[in-house]
Amino acid sequence: MAKLDASGFLIDLDGTVFRGQELIDGAAEAIHTLQSLGKSVVFLSNRGNLSRAMCRKKLLGAGIRTDERSIVLSSSVTASFLKKHYPLSKVWVLGEKGLTDELALAGVAMAQKPQAADWLVISLHETVTYEDLNLAFKAASSGARIIATNRDRSFPNEGGHAMDVAGMIGAIEASAGAKTELVIGKPSWLMAEAACKALGLPPGECAIIGDSLESDIAMGRLYGMKSVLVLTGSAKLGEPRLYEPDIVLGSIKDLTELAKEGILL
Amino acid sequence: MAKLDASGFLIDLDGTVFRGQELIDGAAEAIHTLQSLGKSVVFLSNRGNLSRAMCRKKLLGAGIRTDERSIVLSSSVTASFLKKHYPLSKVWVLGEKGLTDELALAGVAMAQKPQAADWLVISLHETVTYEDLNLAFKAASSGARIIATNRDRSFPNEGGHAMDVAGMIGAIEASAGAKTELVIGKPSWLMAEAACKALGLPPGECAIIGDSLESDIAMGRLYGMKSVLVLTGSAKLGEPRLYEPDIVLGSIKDLTELAKEGILL
Repeated sequence: MAKLDASGFLIDLDGTVFRGQELIDGAAEAIHTLQSLGKSVVFLSNRGNLSRAMCRKKLLGAGIRTDERSIVLSSSVTASFLKKHYPLSKVWVLGEKGLTDELALAGVAMAQKPQAADWLVISLHETVTYEDLNLAFKAASSGARIIATNRDRSFPNEGGHAMDVAGMIGAIEASAGAKTELVIGKPSWLMAEAACKALGLPPGECAIIGDSLESDIAMGRLYGMKSVLVLTGSAKLGEPRLYEPDIVLGSIKDLTELAKEGILL
Repeated sequence: MAKLDASGFLIDLDGTVFRGQELIDGAAEAIHTLQSLGKSVVFLSNRGNLSRAMCRKKLLGAGIRTDERSIVLSSSVTASFLKKHYPLSKVWVLGEKGLTDELALAGVAMAQKPQAADWLVISLHETVTYEDLNLAFKAASSGARIIATNRDRSFPNEGGHAMDVAGMIGAIEASAGAKTELVIGKPSWLMAEAACKALGLPPGECAIIGDSLESDIAMGRLYGMKSVLVLTGSAKLGEPRLYEPDIVLGSIKDLTELAKEGILL
């Protein structure tokens, strides 16, 4: 197996560290191993309905110690993006509390009514109602530009697969005759840049570990990081790959063994 | 003004007879005039969330007498279509009681779970929840074909315009990666044929009265009926018209005057 020499690790969450609410076997130990080897670790996820505080709490609950500066979510990156590039804009949100928390933390201004919004921010909304959809429709119909935290079509849950952000986006685009201008989530350079900034390292010294070929492995290849595919989530052995990872592991758990074997430098 | 000689009249409802819950001034008298001249009248609407029974009740409440055989809705035409052409199919519904009532009346079988549905029927759903959307997503993801009662993007309500069926369709198509196979509403030949059958007249002896160029006037021209545009709804004077109506009236009310002048034969 090729040596995996990296100073910083970007670790995906859903499908890599967690499966739903459940911690993947051996994940906490593997992360401890990285930390004890002096590696810098950030967690990054396309989840746009969570805040970093909610995410940190979940990690701590699973025995993984981290701080909020080491968590990069599509919600927090969306908030930073809007604050940096559109500081005077007012936004309307079709999404959940984790997203509005991050927008508030970044100091993004909320529109008082949908018709007054410059941007409509769309994320996963697992308790969406017709009223929520209709207010977002009004924002988009009144000319608000659309930014989405991510565009995943479905996510795995207890009942199999459930409708993800693509459903929310589709409802608004089709009814308002509008198009989403920007999707923040992996594999975007915005997510990669936020993660490298949190690590304080250039991409060439980083490795991304994730279960998704389209988002994790693609981001590694597109942004010049090493990439490690784990098979505990969406990717399966033997399927065609548009982007080839540097290393394939059955699970993030295997990192502990690789460290013992000296493959992890 | 050209003579309007027709034995049967197809009368649109929203924007022609009603504006929301309110009866358009003079509409009931105009319909009585047609009936007293011995004209056959059917009401037809793209509303897929209502049943004919609900619609008849609304008409009676406004002083317009009719029976359910003289009401043609995209809900009832969808139900007849499925029963006639796919008699053994099981359906899952993303829609409201008016639609499920019509499907039950026609004898269309319901699937016990979304994964078992042959067809997903999508209509307006003004109290839709994430759970409803997610079940429909499961049906479409499991291979159910999609039929929509109509595909209007928005409809006028008290708060301006509200998200219509296109939003429900967009949510499912975008998340399940599926396409709607058939849209039943006007200007389809299915609606035209159902209306002519209810009148017992060929299209050439019928006239359609409606406020929409895209659905009412288009259906008249495409199906060989005379067409009368009223300006109490979506169409405005002076806008470009893909389909030109035979006669333009300010309101359906004007029919009463035309009858006196002998223009209505």
